[in-house]
Amino acid sequence: MSGEVIRCKAAVAWEAGKPLVIEEVEVAPPQKMEVRLKILFTSLCHTDVYFWEAKGQNPLFPRILGHEAGGIVESVGEGVTELQPGDKVLPVFTGECGECRHCKSEESNMCDLLRINTDRGTMINDGKTRFSKDGNPIYHFLGTSTFSEYTVVHSGCVAKINPDAPLDKVCVLSCGISTGMGATLNVAKPKKGMTVAVFGLGAVGLAAAEGARIAGASRIIGIDLNESRADEAKKFGVTEFVNPKDHDKPIQEVIVAMTDGGVDRSVECTGNVRAMISAFECVHDGWGVAVLVGVPSKDDEFKTLPINFLNERTLKGTFFGNYKPRTDIPGVVEKYMNKEIEVEKFITHQVGFSDINKAFDLMLKGESLRCIIQMDA
Amino acid sequence: MSGEVIRCKAAVAWEAGKPLVIEEVEVAPPQKMEVRLKILFTSLCHTDVYFWEAKGQNPLFPRILGHEAGGIVESVGEGVTELQPGDKVLPVFTGECGECRHCKSEESNMCDLLRINTDRGTMINDGKTRFSKDGNPIYHFLGTSTFSEYTVVHSGCVAKINPDAPLDKVCVLSCGISTGMGATLNVAKPKKGMTVAVFGLGAVGLAAAEGARIAGASRIIGIDLNESRADEAKKFGVTEFVNPKDHDKPIQEVIVAMTDGGVDRSVECTGNVRAMISAFECVHDGWGVAVLVGVPSKDDEFKTLPINFLNERTLKGTFFGNYKPRTDIPGVVEKYMNKEIEVEKFITHQVGFSDINKAFDLMLKGESLRCIIQMDA
Ligand SMILES: NC(=O)c1ccc[n+]([C@@H]2O[C@H](COP(=O)([O-])OP(=O)(O)OC[C@H]3O[C@@H](n4cnc5c(N)ncnc54)[C@H](O)[C@@H]3O)[C@@H](O)[C@H]2O)c1
Ligand SMILES: NC(=O)c1ccc[n+]([C@@H]2O[C@H](COP(=O)([O-])OP(=O)(O)OC[C@H]3O[C@@H](n4cnc5c(N)ncnc54)[C@H](O)[C@@H]3O)[C@@H](O)[C@H]2O)c1
Ligand SMILES: [Zn+2]
Ligand SMILES: [Zn+2]
Ligand SMILES: [Zn+2]
Ligand SMILES: [Zn+2]
Repeated sequence: MSGEVIRCKAAVAWEAGKPLVIEEVEVAPPQKMEVRLKILFTSLCHTDVYFWEAKGQNPLFPRILGHEAGGIVESVGEGVTELQPGDKVLPVFTGECGECRHCKSEESNMCDLLRINTDRGTMINDGKTRFSKDGNPIYHFLGTSTFSEYTVVHSGCVAKINPDAPLDKVCVLSCGISTGMGATLNVAKPKKGMTVAVFGLGAVGLAAAEGARIAGASRIIGIDLNESRADEAKKFGVTEFVNPKDHDKPIQEVIVAMTDGGVDRSVECTGNVRAMISAFECVHDGWGVAVLVGVPSKDDEFKTLPINFLNERTLKGTFFGNYKPRTDIPGVVEKYMNKEIEVEKFITHQVGFSDINKAFDLMLKGESLRCIIQMDA
Repeated sequence: MSGEVIRCKAAVAWEAGKPLVIEEVEVAPPQKMEVRLKILFTSLCHTDVYFWEAKGQNPLFPRILGHEAGGIVESVGEGVTELQPGDKVLPVFTGECGECRHCKSEESNMCDLLRINTDRGTMINDGKTRFSKDGNPIYHFLGTSTFSEYTVVHSGCVAKINPDAPLDKVCVLSCGISTGMGATLNVAKPKKGMTVAVFGLGAVGLAAAEGARIAGASRIIGIDLNESRADEAKKFGVTEFVNPKDHDKPIQEVIVAMTDGGVDRSVECTGNVRAMISAFECVHDGWGVAVLVGVPSKDDEFKTLPINFLNERTLKGTFFGNYKPRTDIPGVVEKYMNKEIEVEKFITHQVGFSDINKAFDLMLKGESLRCIIQMDA
């Protein structure tokens, strides 16, 4: 089918907040430096939900959402030499051209060409969509649009992984789990014995907690408004659970009191700007480092007293846990294959593609961590 | 005179914003862990001016200001073993007890016992002042109060330096110059070839620029509202001068445009919260680091979009350039003695003690970098 339009099923978001509709769509062949992927498994991340709700984000519809997934290369466009049909791959929402200053920097994964762009709904090669229905374009999301049996992705956004890796498991490494783990290990970098606070105990936050456990943290304090996260969190190394609803003072004060002046590191994985501020203000002066991971609403403002910085605290943020998708993610998958990291415990639900809206319900109710969506079921 | 009250001259700030008055005051003997110093030279830092104006700071009067100085130990209190009468010393506004977690941490200089406290006007041993006039207490400032011929300081706030060091020069290392240089070298840590922006080209900012030059920065962009800083700045390694008044868009946008996406490092040395925000927002995404040094007004709020952090920028702050006063400052003085750093070019004026108010005028008019005040003239 290489070079031809593929007709297949995709879950289309026609309107903000309305259930996705499984439609038959046309998927154009990959253009220069693009690849067309057959998606086998995808999962739902909170970032998909924000852009589907489009409350704090710019609306763009109709759109095919989805960015956490695993699949097989179906065909490659002109100039693609590092991937070929049949390769097992993870598409990633932020890419790696390999040539720009970011790709060449040891510190950054914010590729000038292929970095995350939440508002763009088209491919960069021609500014057009590869999806259409009855001749009308359907927009892309994060350059991945994995809620489709076939999708077209820039080759710089595709990590080629071990052909033996089970895609129904490692698909979660293409966003949430790598993001959370990397935020702790690559950015917050706790030293052995340090205390770590994690705000938000969804899959991203629990992966951040796992990172803290791997780094040898002495206490891992998990903070969530959802009381049902308390038990689950223990499987992920969280040693203490704090629910802001149980306290009448700001949660940063509670944590400072619990830790004799503040935690050594904190990682925010909620997307809530008040939690971002708390995550910063609860780190110890002198050496504390806070890392923001949650995707903010577009009008959110981060506010704090400048003296909180003067008192020798550090604040940073990260996309995708500072991993470079093509360079680093194959190695993260190897770690899973060697049983150095576990992903099964993040996978709480599984549904067939036709039930994709259930995955949204489960996340909105706070019942799931990751719900795997099997495309051929 | 050890053990007895000393009567001497001090410049007393009786009221916010009113000229200091040279008065004869009583200076009590040092108590446990305190030392009494004979101040020979002091200089004026903008932090003194803020607390004298008491506009954005809590007023506390009458008070003896001053914290950048050099002197000789006159007598020592009970328990002081590391200092003795005759030692040449620099008092420092933030101390080092040597025992607390901060003093033991490699990263922090925010000693739990002796860290900067701008609102305290008394000594920690008994919560009382060592200064009085006609039996009425006069408050201390920053634990140093160097605008007096004699002052009492906690021994943990005193750096013993090379007895050959000229106090009329090295006194400026006890605050501003070490602060600025350390902010760049110890906190922003530019790599060779990086671009650095410095906001505020007073002595602190020019010392930050010197730090950038020493680190091998490729471009050092100095930003100041005071046009007369442009020429001066060239002596300090500043390669380009930008005056925000010459631009009608936010200065961070000007700098981002000048540097193809932002500087690699920035150091804010103004105390103005808008400049703090600009200093953060002008660093490059992916790897940029901004460091706050200026002392904010107490009601200032630092505001920015959280996405500016997510885009992999880092923001930190520092007191005293992260130097530990007793451990590190003797070495900084040695660097001056070995001609590795120059302090003379920061010293633009010199006055006798009776003319101390001139030093305030010069700083308020933006005419001086550092004005040395000679106590016996
Ligand atoms: N920076 C990145 O690269 C990146 C990548 C993936 C996801 N994200 C973001 O990370 C965040 C978490 O994603 P997820 O998939 O784990 O979502 P999730 O919904 O599964 O988990 C979020 C958790 O945060 C909790 N929470 C919400 N507000 C809170 C508050 N004020 N205080 C404490 N807890 C609060 C919720 O109860 C929930 O358990 C989202 O904002 C998502 O957009 C960022
Ligand atoms: N963190 C610390 O340990 C520490 C130590 C010493 C001084 N400080 C602070 O550092 C700052 C500088 O001290 P200094 O003695 O060099 O003062 P200074 O008055 O000599 O220099 C400040 C400079 O900043 C410029 N400026 C003010 N607002 C500006 C703006 N919005 N944009 C650009 N430039 C602006 C002024 O024109 C001036 O040239 C002060 O806030 C002082 O309190 C902090
Ligand atoms: Zn995601
Ligand atoms: Zn790139
Ligand atoms: Zn000072
Ligand atoms: Zn200490």
